[in-house]
Amino acid sequence: MKRVYNFSAGPSCLPVEVLQKAADEMVSYGDSGMSVMEMSHRSSYFKDILAEAKSLYKELMNVPDNYEILFLQGGASTQFAMVPLNLLSKSNKADFMVTGSWAKKAYQESARYGEAKVIASSEDKTFSYIPKVDSKDFTPDADFFHICVNNTIYGSRFRPDNLPDTGDVPLVGDMSSNILSEVYDVSKFGLIYAGAQKNMGPAGVTAVIIRKDLIGHAKDITPTMLNYKIHADNDSCYNTPPCYGIYICKLVYEWVKAKGGVAAMEKINKEKAKKLYDFIDNSKLFTAPVVPEDRSIMNVTFVTGSDELDALFVKESKKAGMENLKGHRSIGGMRASIYNAMPMAGIDTLIDFMTKFEKENA
Amino acid sequence: MKRVYNFSAGPSCLPVEVLQKAADEMVSYGDSGMSVMEMSHRSSYFKDILAEAKSLYKELMNVPDNYEILFLQGGASTQFAMVPLNLLSKSNKADFMVTGSWAKKAYQESARYGEAKVIASSEDKTFSYIPKVDSKDFTPDADFFHICVNNTIYGSRFRPDNLPDTGDVPLVGDMSSNILSEVYDVSKFGLIYAGAQKNMGPAGVTAVIIRKDLIGHAKDITPTMLNYKIHADNDSCYNTPPCYGIYICKLVYEWVKAKGGVAAMEKINKEKAKKLYDFIDNSKLFTAPVVPEDRSIMNVTFVTGSDELDALFVKESKKAGMENLKGHRSIGGMRASIYNAMPMAGIDTLIDFMTKFEKENA
Repeated sequence: MKRVYNFSAGPSCLPVEVLQKAADEMVSYGDSGMSVMEMSHRSSYFKDILAEAKSLYKELMNVPDNYEILFLQGGASTQFAMVPLNLLSKSNKADFMVTGSWAKKAYQESARYGEAKVIASSEDKTFSYIPKVDSKDFTPDADFFHICVNNTIYGSRFRPDNLPDTGDVPLVGDMSSNILSEVYDVSKFGLIYAGAQKNMGPAGVTAVIIRKDLIGHAKDITPTMLNYKIHADNDSCYNTPPCYGIYICKLVYEWVKAKGGVAAMEKINKEKAKKLYDFIDNSKLFTAPVVPEDRSIMNVTFVTGSDELDALFVKESKKAGMENLKGHRSIGGMRASIYNAMPMAGIDTLIDFMTKFEKENA
Repeated sequence: MKRVYNFSAGPSCLPVEVLQKAADEMVSYGDSGMSVMEMSHRSSYFKDILAEAKSLYKELMNVPDNYEILFLQGGASTQFAMVPLNLLSKSNKADFMVTGSWAKKAYQESARYGEAKVIASSEDKTFSYIPKVDSKDFTPDADFFHICVNNTIYGSRFRPDNLPDTGDVPLVGDMSSNILSEVYDVSKFGLIYAGAQKNMGPAGVTAVIIRKDLIGHAKDITPTMLNYKIHADNDSCYNTPPCYGIYICKLVYEWVKAKGGVAAMEKINKEKAKKLYDFIDNSKLFTAPVVPEDRSIMNVTFVTGSDELDALFVKESKKAGMENLKGHRSIGGMRASIYNAMPMAGIDTLIDFMTKFEKENA
């Protein structure tokens, strides 16, 4: 069966073993005589799938016991509203670092519900770095401090050892595009959310890890379905959850665990990213715009410096069996999203192609 | 491969042909070299799937051109908030008929955002009928009038010829559990919403049909993701939509069309329902609590009159290859959900079993 190297930023490549298992179980799951799509969310079959997904995610992310795990709908974009609606409960103030488009959207949505302050932004240099910050500039009584941990469009990230020190103010992290890719200390966060469609499963599931004391303080105007407490009290089954998506996430968690967990993924991911960045940094044609210390190991952005050559690169790479290397429509250039499911062979194929392209077009 | 007759109220049985096709295309869709789950929602492959899903749904439901079709997330429960947040734009008043648990929840959520009035309720008789109403009792300047067209838990429905005549007030219908089951005139509604997981696809997709003039009047407090205009302006791709679920919906739409469309489904559904209700009405053991003229043709509720016998029925039916015949936890008894994908053979198997059960236990 034809398979391409899919460098899409999201939805994006999933482990082929997971897809094969899903295909095998599609018409009848185990001895159930039905598809996971057809199961009542109150059935013991699905309850087991949900419990297993939750338990595996807890284990993989090393989530402390004072946190709740929720599987929700609506993507990170819905979290942009849920976070302020639920967490702006005391001072009604929040701090933001604007390090990319999604970080900015999160800020803008929060600003509709409370006093939102931009502590630092890297928009001056097309979001090509993570600003250095001093915690003395933070709002001491903020209800939360929001960062987008990995910036999918621009290809930068907060390293695990470079998170802002927010003290008692809950740090909220959007980890949609680097969840399960390297080890982050969950206890440094009050809340972590991630749309599944990059490193965890299909679009339509959002995994939320929230410290329990942050649950239960939603504003009066909060729609019931956007209240974390409703979902926490009902173990993500207040209404029908996105059952099939949760099942795929479970299969991906099993795959990550079998590979050795997040630490093992981190090792492989760093090797993959280093190989690609090293090639780019040594190239006469390609350059990577993000400063080395802040580079994402999931989304590798690069340019030739010529719009025509960039377009040619995207076109020719497609013919060579590589899909979705075009950069985001807002910045152009190229982007190789190399999530957990992208094998080293995909990186090698890309580098071989880039080598050839450089020779022909330098 | 083992398959059972699955009478679940939702998520519920899907056509086995759809599941088989999904399995076949799971690892690589067409010539794409990737799963539908792995496709960028901005790719031409997915754009085609979305356009086709929308076009088929429009055709099957005979949606007039002055309506927009949206594929959203969050289920009907999220619509309970979206409807008032977007439609309560002039008088801030809305009317409700409370004919079941979901109708009541919709009313309760609206009451948080405006003046919500219960025009009629059938709670006095455990929601076993649809109340007769007089349009003179309706709020003349209401922003909308809400009904739950089919009541999944209690097994009643508003027939297509029995919709309240709301004049110029937009009628809003929750059709989660009877969408595509019989012909309703969309032009009688201002808005129809349906969670996919009963008659249309997997949980995690909500299809909304909204008259275009009702778009663009959301309250200031409305979260961006709960604003119909955002989704209408971006053709359901403001953020990443639930791509895989939409793809399954498309396969189900193709299946319904191949069967002859909604009118053909209605004919079969009425035959299935009549056969089952006729058996119950002629039985000495089983009774159907809903008044005949208001009975759902999707969710058939029945009881023996004895909790012990009901429990035995559910247990024994499971052994006989029928799943999820237990009534909703709030009312007990039995419920056979016989959605489009339930074949006549499933009805026959159930009636055979009921005949045997009655002989043994009358």
